[in-house]
Amino acid sequence: MNRIEHAQTEAQTIRQRIRRGEITGHTSGLAPGCVQGNVVILPAALASDFLRFCQANPKPCPVLGVSEPGDPALPSLGADIDMRSDVPRYRVFRHGEMVEEPTDVGHLWRDDLVTFILGCSFSFEWALLEDGLQIKHQLCGGNVPMYRTSVQTKPAGRFHGPLVVSMRPFRPADAIRAIQITSRFPGVHGAPVHIGMPELIGIRDIARPDWGDAVEVAADELPLFWACGVTPQAVIAEAKPEFCITHAPGAMLITDLRNSRLAVL
Amino acid sequence: MNRIEHAQTEAQTIRQRIRRGEITGHTSGLAPGCVQGNVVILPAALASDFLRFCQANPKPCPVLGVSEPGDPALPSLGADIDMRSDVPRYRVFRHGEMVEEPTDVGHLWRDDLVTFILGCSFSFEWALLEDGLQIKHQLCGGNVPMYRTSVQTKPAGRFHGPLVVSMRPFRPADAIRAIQITSRFPGVHGAPVHIGMPELIGIRDIARPDWGDAVEVAADELPLFWACGVTPQAVIAEAKPEFCITHAPGAMLITDLRNSRLAVL
Repeated sequence: MNRIEHAQTEAQTIRQRIRRGEITGHTSGLAPGCVQGNVVILPAALASDFLRFCQANPKPCPVLGVSEPGDPALPSLGADIDMRSDVPRYRVFRHGEMVEEPTDVGHLWRDDLVTFILGCSFSFEWALLEDGLQIKHQLCGGNVPMYRTSVQTKPAGRFHGPLVVSMRPFRPADAIRAIQITSRFPGVHGAPVHIGMPELIGIRDIARPDWGDAVEVAADELPLFWACGVTPQAVIAEAKPEFCITHAPGAMLITDLRNSRLAVL
Repeated sequence: MNRIEHAQTEAQTIRQRIRRGEITGHTSGLAPGCVQGNVVILPAALASDFLRFCQANPKPCPVLGVSEPGDPALPSLGADIDMRSDVPRYRVFRHGEMVEEPTDVGHLWRDDLVTFILGCSFSFEWALLEDGLQIKHQLCGGNVPMYRTSVQTKPAGRFHGPLVVSMRPFRPADAIRAIQITSRFPGVHGAPVHIGMPELIGIRDIARPDWGDAVEVAADELPLFWACGVTPQAVIAEAKPEFCITHAPGAMLITDLRNSRLAVL
């Protein structure tokens, strides 16, 4: 059994445990090396606008997979995936309001639901760690700090709103290396969108993130800002679709893809 | 005649004019798209130490070609190159002191001379311009500002000394793009070695370069620092070899290589 087959088996095994309700929390650290994805499930009537929105904003919304309407399978990301049961915990929204946090959405499934899986920063953080770089919020045991910026996404249909970024500080030489490494991974947010000078993208106080935990930027470090998967979540919350299902924060879909296979070079 | 053959012809034509003494100054803008190289010619007794120095310090000293001892040809860089005559203006050093600035060194040629051609920032500046980025010192009509840093090169034999860097300011998004572009060109200094915070590499006053002309870093710009071909020049000046020939500043060897062919990706 080669490494790739082994990883697929591990991802499948964990998905089966999730499906049986044995894992209901976050997926960080599970199936190491496998791509984890953000989940957005929308009625088909909204799905084409959302896909156009993602196409126009690939850095915050990198699409790894889209299902057929009504089909809970996603064969391109894993042979056995069932989107009704394979996410540890879901969030169900009606008209923009969260109404339920179930571990299974079989009772809510509809023939018109389209699943989107979007790339997530876990994959490029894996690549940074593999290269020997240190990621400060991980060392501090916190969540990455995220900020609403003054940069607007390109609107599509009902979907519009500001770009949300995540921030990781690095010393200058490591910052250059982090730009090189993440440039190889456009399918999971890619290169940073900004470096240094947070005020230029509308961040007033780096010590007060809009989501996640504050991380100190030392005197010999530069803050690097990556487009963040919270962007589509904020945009969907603003659009208030009549019905929508997402993953609960940190409880992602584990796919059979290997992070290293997302590298374009 | 395809584009590559045409460029070779243009480079050859210009080398012939240089050989005839019709061009004796700087080569900036000549044979656009062709690689220009820094020239170092040393006696064989020192050449192996210098080659080890370059191997240990590839960012400031990227070797594009090395001749056989005593042979003025460099067939890998151009079929007809004659190093005794094909540089517009040379500098001749004896025991570290410049004694002559001739347009031909046939009268000084020796059976033990080894030619080194080192990559030059003209090539990566070409790539930045091709991508639509603006290079500030060019807009100002000046020379790039260069600085002696507190970073030491790795010594080899008699060769040692500080890393010299060139500085180009960019706005944050362009800085990220400039890192991506120059990362593709390791043979001509490659990615920057530093970004922001000049004081961390021993530069006290960015407004007072050690070579070249000062360039303002605006409030919305970050300074990017690349390893610079002045490094080997400063190292050789310090080592005071009994005999050495270089190109005069800005009067480079024009090769048949195309800049785009130096991209590793």
